Amino acid sequence: MIQSFARIIGFEMESQQDYHMSPEEFRRWGYQAINWIANYLENVENLPVLSQAEPGDIRAKLQDAPQRGESFEAILKDLDEIIMPGLTHWQSPNFFAFFPTGISAPSILGELISAGLGVQGMLWATTPACTELESHILDWLVDMLGLPEQFLSSQAGGGVIQDSASSATLVALLAAREQKIADINKLVVYTSTQAHSSIEKAVKIAGLRRENLRLLEVDTNYAMRTSALQECIKADIQAGLIPCFLAATVGTTSSNAIDPIPQLGEIAQKYKIWLHVDAAMSGTAALCPEFRWIHQGLEQADSYCFNPHKWMMTNFDCTCFYVRDRASLIQALSIMPEFLKNQASDSGKVIDYRDWQIPLGRRFRSLKLWFVIRHYGIEGLQHYVRKHVALAQEFAEWVKSHASFELVVNPPLNLVCFRHKGGDRINQVILNNLNSSGKLYLTSTKLDQKLTLRMSIGQATTERINVEQAWKLICSQADSLSKTV
Amino acid sequence: MIQSFARIIGFEMESQQDYHMSPEEFRRWGYQAINWIANYLENVENLPVLSQAEPGDIRAKLQDAPQRGESFEAILKDLDEIIMPGLTHWQSPNFFAFFPTGISAPSILGELISAGLGVQGMLWATTPACTELESHILDWLVDMLGLPEQFLSSQAGGGVIQDSASSATLVALLAAREQKIADINKLVVYTSTQAHSSIEKAVKIAGLRRENLRLLEVDTNYAMRTSALQECIKADIQAGLIPCFLAATVGTTSSNAIDPIPQLGEIAQKYKIWLHVDAAMSGTAALCPEFRWIHQGLEQADSYCFNPHKWMMTNFDCTCFYVRDRASLIQALSIMPEFLKNQASDSGKVIDYRDWQIPLGRRFRSLKLWFVIRHYGIEGLQHYVRKHVALAQEFAEWVKSHASFELVVNPPLNLVCFRHKGGDRINQVILNNLNSSGKLYLTSTKLDQKLTLRMSIGQATTERINVEQAWKLICSQADSLSKTV
Repeated sequence: MIQSFARIIGFEMESQQDYHMSPEEFRRWGYQAINWIANYLENVENLPVLSQAEPGDIRAKLQDAPQRGESFEAILKDLDEIIMPGLTHWQSPNFFAFFPTGISAPSILGELISAGLGVQGMLWATTPACTELESHILDWLVDMLGLPEQFLSSQAGGGVIQDSASSATLVALLAAREQKIADINKLVVYTSTQAHSSIEKAVKIAGLRRENLRLLEVDTNYAMRTSALQECIKADIQAGLIPCFLAATVGTTSSNAIDPIPQLGEIAQKYKIWLHVDAAMSGTAALCPEFRWIHQGLEQADSYCFNPHKWMMTNFDCTCFYVRDRASLIQALSIMPEFLKNQASDSGKVIDYRDWQIPLGRRFRSLKLWFVIRHYGIEGLQHYVRKHVALAQEFAEWVKSHASFELVVNPPLNLVCFRHKGGDRINQVILNNLNSSGKLYLTSTKLDQKLTLRMSIGQATTERINVEQAWKLICSQADSLSKTV
Repeated sequence: MIQSFARIIGFEMESQQDYHMSPEEFRRWGYQAINWIANYLENVENLPVLSQAEPGDIRAKLQDAPQRGESFEAILKDLDEIIMPGLTHWQSPNFFAFFPTGISAPSILGELISAGLGVQGMLWATTPACTELESHILDWLVDMLGLPEQFLSSQAGGGVIQDSASSATLVALLAAREQKIADINKLVVYTSTQAHSSIEKAVKIAGLRRENLRLLEVDTNYAMRTSALQECIKADIQAGLIPCFLAATVGTTSSNAIDPIPQLGEIAQKYKIWLHVDAAMSGTAALCPEFRWIHQGLEQADSYCFNPHKWMMTNFDCTCFYVRDRASLIQALSIMPEFLKNQASDSGKVIDYRDWQIPLGRRFRSLKLWFVIRHYGIEGLQHYVRKHVALAQEFAEWVKSHASFELVVNPPLNLVCFRHKGGDRINQVILNNLNSSGKLYLTSTKLDQKLTLRMSIGQATTERINVEQAWKLICSQADSLSKTV
């Protein structure tokens, strides 16, 4: 029967044809790929930072799917000719937009080895090293950042790698929601007007009512006003609603504002609200003892996250998420079907990380983090944090001493918010001209309804010369505008 | 002031110290990493497939975080000595457990280049090529698999890469939920008793009531009974509930059962229920025209997904998710904060994929898929599907003709469900002995409450000899048991 089956589907069982790369070919093209990346990173400083492509430009050059395989040479050629003009170079030392997306040589090699192993870490049993290395390194980071002990895996809590701070916020909200045995329509979420959009997105995803999301007023530093929070909670309780989740930020995306965690923690405890602290970009600063004040009060938090994929030279995706009571998280996310049952899980002696996240499958992401920490050492990681903060502080001084620009807020760390005193239109023109020059890439936000430029310094290869050059370009834009206006 | 600031934080601005790898070092260690992977994949066949580590074994060998950086040599050494014994080798040709997690040389190199570029594709504007290549290849796959045209980006629908089928189910459910302007507590979700656990997980995450998830009975082939569905819907409507979401499976995890999509599509349309079709593993079969019958009726689906990271030699994570009406998905997931506003998004001419997924950030995942399709060509990809199906069919014949074993169901594709006729205890012993031998790795499920062994054939490097050898080991286990019993 199998003979006829093989004949029907036109497949010859004894066919010797093989479409895989041989190990020799893999070595050859692997070396080429490594060279390609080395060349790219050596030259990225000279490329226009922001892609100048128009919608449809890239697709117009892409062909149909090939019937027969092509050479790797042809693929690399198209990478250069078709893909390259459509890239914005996030790894340029002149990239000052959004927040940085850190990479580094050891991180790239960690990703490479992880891809080569191709293991799945959904359960401890499906690849023990994937789970144990992750727990171990997440414990390292508790010490390295001076985080509260409640987040250690030897306590009731523990850490896990998520894909992003968005997902970290979501799973924290799910755990909080699960603890309130109540009508979902009555649960209320609190955050500030300056909080990341991922909080509103998490509220939507988790099925809570959007009208039950409170965006609280901020103070002159753009940090949450605790009085506003307290009043809001009281009013909600009076209205028969149930306070559930408080999302505080250490380093907002707009201006790097730091919410008053100690006071928020007290309020959260008083009203039995889950306190989640999002330090996506800024958390990395706590590698340096002199910046650990940003985490003051964190011992009252139920969950916390920061992103090594932003400021710690580790490739996206790598968000470190910590929870005080892992049981609450597992309760919210655990499902154990028959095909996943195994002795180790039954024993209760192991962590099955798929119960700590949205997806089932998971890559071996702790490898890259391990490679980064071991290559740089704590000392090397501290070096770059200190360098970026010092550069940002110096940049802020330049802004202050310039007649046409103003500092919008004193930068606590490595993000400088500033604007031309001439108003929104001028700032928009400056921004557009700078970005279309290709020489640097800046983004903007609105603070007090005014367009504000953001100088975000956190690229691993950014040197003082890049920051100086950026400031000169900004000033020359302002000069030429004041001449034409 | 900056002088004193620098002094306070102990950082010398003019410090020349650099902790990065030089380009030369990156090349050197990059070649080593490539060699390491080539050696690993050449020898993986000889390693014990299932890790024999006990809980805590790996952590016990891991050190503290280093204060000073270490050599890459030391890291690679620990990789060999500490990590290797804790790996289950998912890329072994003797891996027949769960479903395969495909990788291949071009895919590894695609991941490598993606890591080296380190771009973010959250918006079209943040890296145009990342979005356009993804749309283009997802369109390729509509043609390559013969999927309905409604899923093309030139129509009202479109495709996007998700991390996993779990997340695809979740975002589909969120879009469905958003369309029903109704009390979330009244929404009902339908699937079969054989559906993947990710559906229950999605229901939990989306905030629907778990008691509103209907696990419908299956027929003798473990496919959903349409009569059961219809009755259930009627009863729910009568009870004042609102049918919302129907999750059908093409190739269940337990037994590769295929739900009757044409009939389910009619019912879904009649009652205005969102029909999501999950073909995570099996969808890849449709690369071959002779297997496209698995997708019959798909033109009635609102959404669909399959995972190139399972059977199409593309590294995890890579789930291709398609939606008929992209506006419904975007409506459910879009948030546009000030710091992400840009001209391209405002123009409406581009796709911003962050509105199609849970996280905000996204890697350049289409690169690896592009590399895989171009390297193998459609012909090469078809070759492996045909080979695996033929091997599984042959294996099923061997089971049928053995006196002590029985086939539990005729395998539609590449997953064979079988058991020893001696009952659960014997099957469990056979399974444990096989897996602890290290010579192969099989997993089990329960079908009709009986323990059932799953022979899943989909590893890119599995040859006929590996399947033959597995069968001999299984038979010899059965023989030795019948002698001792």
